[in-house]
Amino acid sequence: MTEPQGASVSRNQLETGAAQDGAPKPQASAPASAARDDDTVITALTLDDAALTPAMQAYFDKCTEKLGFVPNVLRAYAFDTAKLEAFVAMYNDLMLAPSGLSKLEREMIAVAVSSQNRCYYCLVAHGAAVRALSDDPVLGELMVMNYRAARLDRRQRAMLDFAVKLTAEPFGIEDVDRAALREVGFSDRDIFDIAAVTGFFNMSNRVASATDMRPNSAYHRQKRG
Amino acid sequence: MTEPQGASVSRNQLETGAAQDGAPKPQASAPASAARDDDTVITALTLDDAALTPAMQAYFDKCTEKLGFVPNVLRAYAFDTAKLEAFVAMYNDLMLAPSGLSKLEREMIAVAVSSQNRCYYCLVAHGAAVRALSDDPVLGELMVMNYRAARLDRRQRAMLDFAVKLTAEPFGIEDVDRAALREVGFSDRDIFDIAAVTGFFNMSNRVASATDMRPNSAYHRQKRG
Amino acid sequence: MTEPQGASVSRNQLETGAAQDGAPKPQASAPASAARDDDTVITALTLDDAALTPAMQAYFDKCTEKLGFVPNVLRAYAFDTAKLEAFVAMYNDLMLAPSGLSKLEREMIAVAVSSQNRCYYCLVAHGAAVRALSDDPVLGELMVMNYRAARLDRRQRAMLDFAVKLTAEPFGIEDVDRAALREVGFSDRDIFDIAAVTGFFNMSNRVASATDMRPNSAYHRQKRG
Amino acid sequence: MTEPQGASVSRNQLETGAAQDGAPKPQASAPASAARDDDTVITALTLDDAALTPAMQAYFDKCTEKLGFVPNVLRAYAFDTAKLEAFVAMYNDLMLAPSGLSKLEREMIAVAVSSQNRCYYCLVAHGAAVRALSDDPVLGELMVMNYRAARLDRRQRAMLDFAVKLTAEPFGIEDVDRAALREVGFSDRDIFDIAAVTGFFNMSNRVASATDMRPNSAYHRQKRG
Amino acid sequence: MTEPQGASVSRNQLETGAAQDGAPKPQASAPASAARDDDTVITALTLDDAALTPAMQAYFDKCTEKLGFVPNVLRAYAFDTAKLEAFVAMYNDLMLAPSGLSKLEREMIAVAVSSQNRCYYCLVAHGAAVRALSDDPVLGELMVMNYRAARLDRRQRAMLDFAVKLTAEPFGIEDVDRAALREVGFSDRDIFDIAAVTGFFNMSNRVASATDMRPNSAYHRQKRG
Amino acid sequence: MTEPQGASVSRNQLETGAAQDGAPKPQASAPASAARDDDTVITALTLDDAALTPAMQAYFDKCTEKLGFVPNVLRAYAFDTAKLEAFVAMYNDLMLAPSGLSKLEREMIAVAVSSQNRCYYCLVAHGAAVRALSDDPVLGELMVMNYRAARLDRRQRAMLDFAVKLTAEPFGIEDVDRAALREVGFSDRDIFDIAAVTGFFNMSNRVASATDMRPNSAYHRQKRG
Repeated sequence: MTEPQGASVSRNQLETGAAQDGAPKPQASAPASAARDDDTVITALTLDDAALTPAMQAYFDKCTEKLGFVPNVLRAYAFDTAKLEAFVAMYNDLMLAPSGLSKLEREMIAVAVSSQNRCYYCLVAHGAAVRALSDDPVLGELMVMNYRAARLDRRQRAMLDFAVKLTAEPFGIEDVDRAALREVGFSDRDIFDIAAVTGFFNMSNRVASATDMRPNSAYHRQKRG
Repeated sequence: MTEPQGASVSRNQLETGAAQDGAPKPQASAPASAARDDDTVITALTLDDAALTPAMQAYFDKCTEKLGFVPNVLRAYAFDTAKLEAFVAMYNDLMLAPSGLSKLEREMIAVAVSSQNRCYYCLVAHGAAVRALSDDPVLGELMVMNYRAARLDRRQRAMLDFAVKLTAEPFGIEDVDRAALREVGFSDRDIFDIAAVTGFFNMSNRVASATDMRPNSAYHRQKRG
Repeated sequence: MTEPQGASVSRNQLETGAAQDGAPKPQASAPASAARDDDTVITALTLDDAALTPAMQAYFDKCTEKLGFVPNVLRAYAFDTAKLEAFVAMYNDLMLAPSGLSKLEREMIAVAVSSQNRCYYCLVAHGAAVRALSDDPVLGELMVMNYRAARLDRRQRAMLDFAVKLTAEPFGIEDVDRAALREVGFSDRDIFDIAAVTGFFNMSNRVASATDMRPNSAYHRQKRG
Repeated sequence: MTEPQGASVSRNQLETGAAQDGAPKPQASAPASAARDDDTVITALTLDDAALTPAMQAYFDKCTEKLGFVPNVLRAYAFDTAKLEAFVAMYNDLMLAPSGLSKLEREMIAVAVSSQNRCYYCLVAHGAAVRALSDDPVLGELMVMNYRAARLDRRQRAMLDFAVKLTAEPFGIEDVDRAALREVGFSDRDIFDIAAVTGFFNMSNRVASATDMRPNSAYHRQKRG
Repeated sequence: MTEPQGASVSRNQLETGAAQDGAPKPQASAPASAARDDDTVITALTLDDAALTPAMQAYFDKCTEKLGFVPNVLRAYAFDTAKLEAFVAMYNDLMLAPSGLSKLEREMIAVAVSSQNRCYYCLVAHGAAVRALSDDPVLGELMVMNYRAARLDRRQRAMLDFAVKLTAEPFGIEDVDRAALREVGFSDRDIFDIAAVTGFFNMSNRVASATDMRPNSAYHRQKRG
Repeated sequence: MTEPQGASVSRNQLETGAAQDGAPKPQASAPASAARDDDTVITALTLDDAALTPAMQAYFDKCTEKLGFVPNVLRAYAFDTAKLEAFVAMYNDLMLAPSGLSKLEREMIAVAVSSQNRCYYCLVAHGAAVRALSDDPVLGELMVMNYRAARLDRRQRAMLDFAVKLTAEPFGIEDVDRAALREVGFSDRDIFDIAAVTGFFNMSNRVASATDMRPNSAYHRQKRG
């Protein structure tokens, strides 16, 4: 079995120095910073990893190959195969499948929503994605800090206004809000996708905040320009 | 193919009386009420249904058999098989799979969260579920109106306090909030499940509000006592 | 004297099983539900009923005749004749006297305001009134859950927008808000009535919430369609 | 008939200089200030005064005798006898009848609530009442500006904390809030009175804001010390 | 050295009656009111006054000559010369130097901003300034209570709308907000001044609230008309 | 005279390509990114630079020498010498003079406050300062995104809790909040400094947001680790 062990180390064990099975303390190789434990103690919950299915193992391997690491959110779900698979299926469909929204636009929504909800995990991980997909480190910062300060075209501005209103006061969305999206060229299918990505990060932000999920430390340095 | 046709009828068509393919107007059998069109025009978006896969067709059939209808949220996702399957997989795992939370408790979270977000679809559909699972019509009303007014035991009160805080200010959840759950007996796995159900309805509330999703009219009369 | 005795039973007495004057415990005939004690312990305050004046006795009798019970809000005020009479006079004038607003419209305001304030008592009692006056169970649910999701005509929508803004941020009401009412046909007298009904339920919601007032259990089943 | 005429002068008439029945323009004797029209155009609504009943006429006369003027709120209700009488009955009971709360304490609640709602009419009129009843001009200012800055004893502080929470988030009041009042010596009857006064000004604030009710200019100079 | 001694008297000393160096208790000459200690115990912090520089001594002397007292905010900064000088320099430039905004307009901003932040010190001190500069006691009250209730011309209304939005949600200010100022005649330099005065009182409000700064009691009676 | 010319170029000129005095367009050397114009068009206001005084020229020269550039906030104030000097004096005293708070702690407050206010300029410039002073890129991100997610000691956590509450609801600060600071070891002078730094950034955030101030593009890459 080769699934990551770290997720089953509880924060308490770590702080008292009692590492699992006598192995060297995981901090040894961790970055000397506020992110020191973030690659080893990935949530505030102690949950034992389940055995990965072959499909999930392959997916984790592909993450390692492409990113150099398995995103902590996946490790946080790895205690339960059904939950991990459902999360991965929904994530991959929403963020990677064909859509009228570019992958960058979907990541811009992810970060603007996460900024509204002040979700540390998602801002770090998806802020890096905006930097990478846009090849513009500053655009990532703008999405994290205040999307209203970015010089966006009308389409992207309307998209983010909808996503942030839907986040802050979902009960207030009405026909006029959908009309504003259609006016800048979004189709009904695009509107669904904006809604679904906004919804997904309103979910993920809350799972991450509820569990104090920590972003892999490697994200911070990615694509800083 | 037998998937429901209604979802592909746009609101505009319906309002002008131009029903699809010359069939009798769907309102004919609809309830004469504010829910008049809710069984036929299920969202504000016009999206053509995809062909259901055999698995999804079977699932829809089972819904019809057990509930007398296919919940509109499923029909709203039916334009895209991958989205429908991911939603169903996640929903069934969260709400029906074994958990330290009873099914009723998970539905109570669903409704308290949806009340915070004032989501019409979810309040109607899951309010009915609370009535059914508790065999107590009043408990459903309390979850819809103000869960703080319910006479709950400490465990369920702590569970809903966490869920509603996580909904209203996710950035403010800290160790002390998780400790409050552990104090009334929730395990770390239970905490994950509370977080995940809360997150899921924060997602669903927003997809429903963004698309003006309408609850099947039959929910209203269910289990009124 | 025949006034209801229940209001003078304190919650504490009830919970320890010490019912008044050795009579059988009042829960005996109460519904087995979250509303179990709501017909007997109607607020969190212990206040002895005053003797009803003949006028108030007649009014209570008429309530019993027409509704089958005396609304708990009246019993909650029954400890003080002046307060009860002032409440009844103002209520009856606002909700039942001639006005440019129909009785249903006044009840719609009552529920939309009470939803903003999440008042359990008023949502239950006046939600039932909307169901009864409209002969539409779903309209009641819409007012409770999110009036913006109802398919209202422009007049009623403007009326509720004004009432809810006046509830949420009264300091922000200005000429433009009154103009919006005039534009859909409301007279200055109508505007006063919208304001007065909105104000009245902002009062009642707070008296009910401050005292944990419980709605009569019979409301829940009324007019469910 | 001797009821005040001013209330039936619309703002529009006044601004174009067209005073009622050729009489000298009412501003002539009005203060040269931001309160210039406040004694003549008392709301933004044009409503004809009804004939005062003898009881109400006597009440208005007593106001003139004691205060030097009829409070504009009474003139604003004078278009309809039933509304005027109900308002006066409830006001007099709440603010003047025997209670465990002193008259000053009831006025302190009035102003702290009106500050939360930023109601110009009530802050001016009841701020003057606090100055008069306390013989302390500064206490009035503190209630208007931020009651938390006042050096209050525990009883009055608890009373205002309850009133302001009940104003800002009525749905959040629970047993613990009532317990805090009992702890500093308030009886259940006192709690009802705190709730009722708080409720009443949440009503009045909204009627005043909805109609742009203007305070009599004389209030401003009263009891400035 | 002649700097005021009072600022170094701690609140605790005062409440136990232990006045500095055996001198008569400072309350002796204080007003018998809620402002009783406000001229002697000017903040909740115990900080020893620094020796005033000749420039600052001259400035304090001028205050005493013109106002009859040294404003407590200056005494609160007097523990540190650099802080006092920087505060005075910025204040005098913003509020007294030539600007497209009149001194009254700058004070109106000061009070409207302080009302949003409910700052007792600034509302008292600058409310008095609005009364003095406008020669209109009522205008001061309107700025304190709800600037929206004042009958302002379009220029001043736009100015205050900008200042209050900038206070309440600074992240939401965009080109359209600046355009609204230009439309009523403000130059870019004027816009900077509106921003700077708004910013300055957002700073001062917070220093005053953080330290429980008390306004000199003399302000209350000034210019009451 | 050698003061920067850029500040006097209006955004409109730039967008139409009409650069000042025929010189090559400033974008030529600007970064190809969302920060493209941020080094040349530093606010949304068109204000001509004043001649720098020798002291200010020396200060700007020192900035260039130490940082490689003059921070845009200084250039934004350069249209008026008195404003520039007052800003610089206050800034240098607060952020650089001796204090019980370390320079890093003062910058942490700066960023946590700016995060609450979502101020793009201050988050970029002072986020870089936290990275530099702490030698920890991740600490800067945590202050920007959600300081509650940082693993801070009790002292720094109490400091930031006070600063953020003082920012969000200044009217709610009371003795208990100051006591929480004293409990973790802060002196009264330290409390003043926390208040003053918090106040200063509440001012700067608003001047920056009101003028759409842009951070120098060089900040983004600084100290990314």
